[in-house]
Amino acid sequence: MKIKIGIVGGTGYTGVELLRLLAKHPQAQLDIITSRGEAGKHVTELFPNLRGHVDLRFSNPDYDALSACDVVFFATPHATAMYSMAKLIEAGTRVIDLSADFRIKDVKLWEQWYNVEHACPELIDMAVYGLAELNRKQIAQAQLVACPGCYPTAMQLGLLPLIEAGVVDTQDLIVDAKSGVSGAGRKASVAGLMGETGESFKAYAASGHRHLPETIESLSRVAQHQVQLTFVPHLVPMVRGMEATIFANLTQQQKNQSLQDLFEQRYKDEPFVDVLPQGSHPETRSVRGVNTCQLAIHQPKNSSKVIVLSVIDNLVKGASGQAIQNMNIMFDLPETTGLDGVGLLP
Amino acid sequence: MKIKIGIVGGTGYTGVELLRLLAKHPQAQLDIITSRGEAGKHVTELFPNLRGHVDLRFSNPDYDALSACDVVFFATPHATAMYSMAKLIEAGTRVIDLSADFRIKDVKLWEQWYNVEHACPELIDMAVYGLAELNRKQIAQAQLVACPGCYPTAMQLGLLPLIEAGVVDTQDLIVDAKSGVSGAGRKASVAGLMGETGESFKAYAASGHRHLPETIESLSRVAQHQVQLTFVPHLVPMVRGMEATIFANLTQQQKNQSLQDLFEQRYKDEPFVDVLPQGSHPETRSVRGVNTCQLAIHQPKNSSKVIVLSVIDNLVKGASGQAIQNMNIMFDLPETTGLDGVGLLP
Amino acid sequence: MKIKIGIVGGTGYTGVELLRLLAKHPQAQLDIITSRGEAGKHVTELFPNLRGHVDLRFSNPDYDALSACDVVFFATPHATAMYSMAKLIEAGTRVIDLSADFRIKDVKLWEQWYNVEHACPELIDMAVYGLAELNRKQIAQAQLVACPGCYPTAMQLGLLPLIEAGVVDTQDLIVDAKSGVSGAGRKASVAGLMGETGESFKAYAASGHRHLPETIESLSRVAQHQVQLTFVPHLVPMVRGMEATIFANLTQQQKNQSLQDLFEQRYKDEPFVDVLPQGSHPETRSVRGVNTCQLAIHQPKNSSKVIVLSVIDNLVKGASGQAIQNMNIMFDLPETTGLDGVGLLP
Amino acid sequence: MKIKIGIVGGTGYTGVELLRLLAKHPQAQLDIITSRGEAGKHVTELFPNLRGHVDLRFSNPDYDALSACDVVFFATPHATAMYSMAKLIEAGTRVIDLSADFRIKDVKLWEQWYNVEHACPELIDMAVYGLAELNRKQIAQAQLVACPGCYPTAMQLGLLPLIEAGVVDTQDLIVDAKSGVSGAGRKASVAGLMGETGESFKAYAASGHRHLPETIESLSRVAQHQVQLTFVPHLVPMVRGMEATIFANLTQQQKNQSLQDLFEQRYKDEPFVDVLPQGSHPETRSVRGVNTCQLAIHQPKNSSKVIVLSVIDNLVKGASGQAIQNMNIMFDLPETTGLDGVGLLP
Repeated sequence: MKIKIGIVGGTGYTGVELLRLLAKHPQAQLDIITSRGEAGKHVTELFPNLRGHVDLRFSNPDYDALSACDVVFFATPHATAMYSMAKLIEAGTRVIDLSADFRIKDVKLWEQWYNVEHACPELIDMAVYGLAELNRKQIAQAQLVACPGCYPTAMQLGLLPLIEAGVVDTQDLIVDAKSGVSGAGRKASVAGLMGETGESFKAYAASGHRHLPETIESLSRVAQHQVQLTFVPHLVPMVRGMEATIFANLTQQQKNQSLQDLFEQRYKDEPFVDVLPQGSHPETRSVRGVNTCQLAIHQPKNSSKVIVLSVIDNLVKGASGQAIQNMNIMFDLPETTGLDGVGLLP
Repeated sequence: MKIKIGIVGGTGYTGVELLRLLAKHPQAQLDIITSRGEAGKHVTELFPNLRGHVDLRFSNPDYDALSACDVVFFATPHATAMYSMAKLIEAGTRVIDLSADFRIKDVKLWEQWYNVEHACPELIDMAVYGLAELNRKQIAQAQLVACPGCYPTAMQLGLLPLIEAGVVDTQDLIVDAKSGVSGAGRKASVAGLMGETGESFKAYAASGHRHLPETIESLSRVAQHQVQLTFVPHLVPMVRGMEATIFANLTQQQKNQSLQDLFEQRYKDEPFVDVLPQGSHPETRSVRGVNTCQLAIHQPKNSSKVIVLSVIDNLVKGASGQAIQNMNIMFDLPETTGLDGVGLLP
Repeated sequence: MKIKIGIVGGTGYTGVELLRLLAKHPQAQLDIITSRGEAGKHVTELFPNLRGHVDLRFSNPDYDALSACDVVFFATPHATAMYSMAKLIEAGTRVIDLSADFRIKDVKLWEQWYNVEHACPELIDMAVYGLAELNRKQIAQAQLVACPGCYPTAMQLGLLPLIEAGVVDTQDLIVDAKSGVSGAGRKASVAGLMGETGESFKAYAASGHRHLPETIESLSRVAQHQVQLTFVPHLVPMVRGMEATIFANLTQQQKNQSLQDLFEQRYKDEPFVDVLPQGSHPETRSVRGVNTCQLAIHQPKNSSKVIVLSVIDNLVKGASGQAIQNMNIMFDLPETTGLDGVGLLP
Repeated sequence: MKIKIGIVGGTGYTGVELLRLLAKHPQAQLDIITSRGEAGKHVTELFPNLRGHVDLRFSNPDYDALSACDVVFFATPHATAMYSMAKLIEAGTRVIDLSADFRIKDVKLWEQWYNVEHACPELIDMAVYGLAELNRKQIAQAQLVACPGCYPTAMQLGLLPLIEAGVVDTQDLIVDAKSGVSGAGRKASVAGLMGETGESFKAYAASGHRHLPETIESLSRVAQHQVQLTFVPHLVPMVRGMEATIFANLTQQQKNQSLQDLFEQRYKDEPFVDVLPQGSHPETRSVRGVNTCQLAIHQPKNSSKVIVLSVIDNLVKGASGQAIQNMNIMFDLPETTGLDGVGLLP
């Protein structure tokens, strides 16, 4: 029995990445991929890497047809999925939303950061925040899964063991994160030109980035109190890959070994979180194209700081891979189904 | 006495490059830089590298004010300058056009390749093709200079000695050229995103590129008969730099040394053409940021082929630097004035 | 029944690429990977992308143990495999050599280009040149397969249909090829530093490259006479990917369509050669990580030239993927076994 | 009157950068450049960008000849200059050391981090730490100037105003810094290959980097007590450029404007420190090739954090440009002499 799949908004990088991964997923049956702009075009005209692997044309969104799918992925920009979500939910279709529309429970907070009125606030409550390493059981039962953003994924996987164990000061968490340019999506812009982003490095949104409130909300649920997080994202002159360098203050004397153990214990059954040996420095290329998060823990000498290094592929564990991981959970498949590739190094 | 300068269309890469170079030109006085889209903004808001060097705001184009300049540079997309050229020419203002509008004498050919009717065909004849190494004397007297495209510059500097000396078959010239992404300009597009162009290589326009007809026309004037040229451009995942690999058939037995001599003699008085020692392979980085073309000549064993390797910075000798070189000639300044920098390696 | 596999020289880029691909090959059993320099180290210490996929340590080469494998891959630098080949051949082990040692039948020619005496010239004759699209039947029976170089693969796949059909002048073939830096291997050098190769482009070996003689020898066998080929390789500032732009003169009037047909017919049963629709420009990223060669054919107007654009991943179809393709043929497996991935775009 | 200059160790990136900048310095007379490995070669054989600008050959180090220079730059790896420093100091020659040998006053601390016994600890005291923005007067009188490392330069320029004004908690300073690959120098290595560093991002030395103790020592002198600094460096897949993102806790309520004012006041007379307007995000490309540090100050909402973003060109303000700035001060020249270029953007 195959899972019948629809994808809304398939011309962006998370769309083509869903296609790349689902094309090799043994239980996936790609039925529909929509795009208003490219309706009628074969997917391989836009993405020649799919030749021989995906035989599908973009179509205009048809929510009746989409409702007939077992699951619909939204790979749309933010503030898009919310306008058509109700139809699918009413029809009983399961939905995995890669966008930001249902990630934040506090709708006022969401509206403040996304600068638009939410179109269906009544559905926010039913949405499960799709970080499997945190909410696996709820995801299994969910009709609507809101996949975390790429930065929130890299950050939370690095912070969860520390917060859950109560060993760091949750009022002073700092994350300095870096992303390849594909994180900004595949839409015409000057800022995203290689002439603007190549061979250069910069911070952006240093005073506040949209991925901050969802991370704080989720981590605060874990901590059972409001956490304080400072977050600065940066743009790296590469296509794929994301790194988060996390700084926290230990609230009690910790030996290196015990922190290493803490992380290894926390993630020992997680198929997609890989705690590297002590002293390691994870590289984004080691997880290129795969759903793995690699972590390393460092403690500078004579210091109460702990530094966690976290790398993911922003388009896989940070987006489409995580979405498929959630689909696997929702449809009771082994979680690694279709996600067992090896990172493309070099 | 300073030269009063206006720039039309200053928000693209050739615009900011004119500013970068003219800011250090001892005879240049930057008076006007126009941009409809950014009128009112200080140039340093768009280009923070100019802070402390250029104190100017973008303004809406005002052709009366521009006419009062000693020289006006057009750094506009093609099919733009031609609409306002007549006003400046009538006013007696000297104009250096970096765009394609006046490069081709055969107006029908131009219209065919640029797919628009020419707005002032009567001015084409007065335009001098601004390759100083070929037309220095005419440039000195010109009111309107049409600067060559970047590819045509790299190609012609590599081919001129061979064609002038009559040692190659002009009916079978081949150029395989490669450009950094800044050659495509600074305009919003999907194709120019780093997500589309980074970490990848491709040919484009293999069946015909707009820089072909101007090159053929100019080289045919040199040869005094119609030449045949096959030209394939490619996109390199880097910001700046252009390389042309030129293949031609020697029509008579040539010793390596004699070709080397031929090139060295041809360019011995040229300040911006540097013939490298035998056996060299020029790198684009050696001319990064400067107006130099570096050339090397190779002859494979047991072959009648000659291979010429030609590198330039597409934004300098391929555009703004060459334009300033022409200005220096037009205003009887030493040709290297303001253009004597050292390439930024690494 | 699994195929027991040994790899000699596993610390280079073709070595790790063999591991990446074989880790997911359903019939492959990785038994031995040798490295004198890294003996004792776990492969994942060097290549963390293999964590969870390959559980193997580098060992010193032991030819008795290697002989017990069903097949041994040599992923060594040139002039290395030849010193230990005899032992394996005598033991009856099948060998797939990714290096240059057995590619050229004319041993004097080989010695001239590789500048060393061949250590076992008597084995050259038994070696089959491992371009499956040309020599599939011989590969199936071979004990020793010499895999083509990366450039020769990209070139020959683009030239074969033209030469076999006799429609081009074989005395004037030109290939302008471009490679990512991984083609130079994973050995300490100044020339390979990112500080030397990043954000720059250059030709190299313009007077003659080692991949030329093997290509000429193979194509001359196809043509049944000596062909003339001019070949200039270039270095692209990216890690993976190779493009060849091929220029040839048509010997008779050909319509575009007929050339397109010629290529499509020639490759219609080839699983790894993909002829793109007319007008296409293949990008290296479309075949990143996969064993596919994508081709496009162009004919400039008013010209007797044909231009073929050919892209491969230099480490896959140009090396390790092609080697596994040959293994599949030798062991009578479906040719795409373990090689059916989707290119990593973007 | 020209300044007669010698350079020891001229084949690295800081060496060629000294040559690039000094070639255009109106008071500089390049007399000697040493390299044991390349003695006899013309500098333009290694660095073709210098053709037409520098006419000099590498020579073996001759300390008598070097002593006759007005100033000698050491562009050597660490633990090299210290072996020959005494001879030059005794001869009365002024020395500007770009290496780490004389940066740290606490010789035990230096020996611990650099893992070698210091060869002339008696000269450490006379060395002036060459951060002009901090020690201008002492530099003017110094015989021996120890130029700061690249990271320490980017960090200190961002931290000085805060520490001097006493507005941050000096016991909890955090710097997350990122460097282009040229920072690792121009020496053969596997780790520096583009195949290893291209299209990937990673932290390194997260538990402790050699640039940490010199920064702490210098900042502690400013603070007049021992500061605590956590520092994690990262490698960016680009050639040039460095960014430091600095996190500190404000010890008192500060308005954005007042911090902006604080920085602008502190640096209002500094020719090479440029405080960007509020809300800016400095890019490394804006200072490519020039001696400028661009800074921006951010305060996240509802937070006592201040975030300072600091960019430099690691080879200019982070090395060779800063060294020439120090030379200008030592020889009583206007500080910007030869250093007034415009950043190469794009």
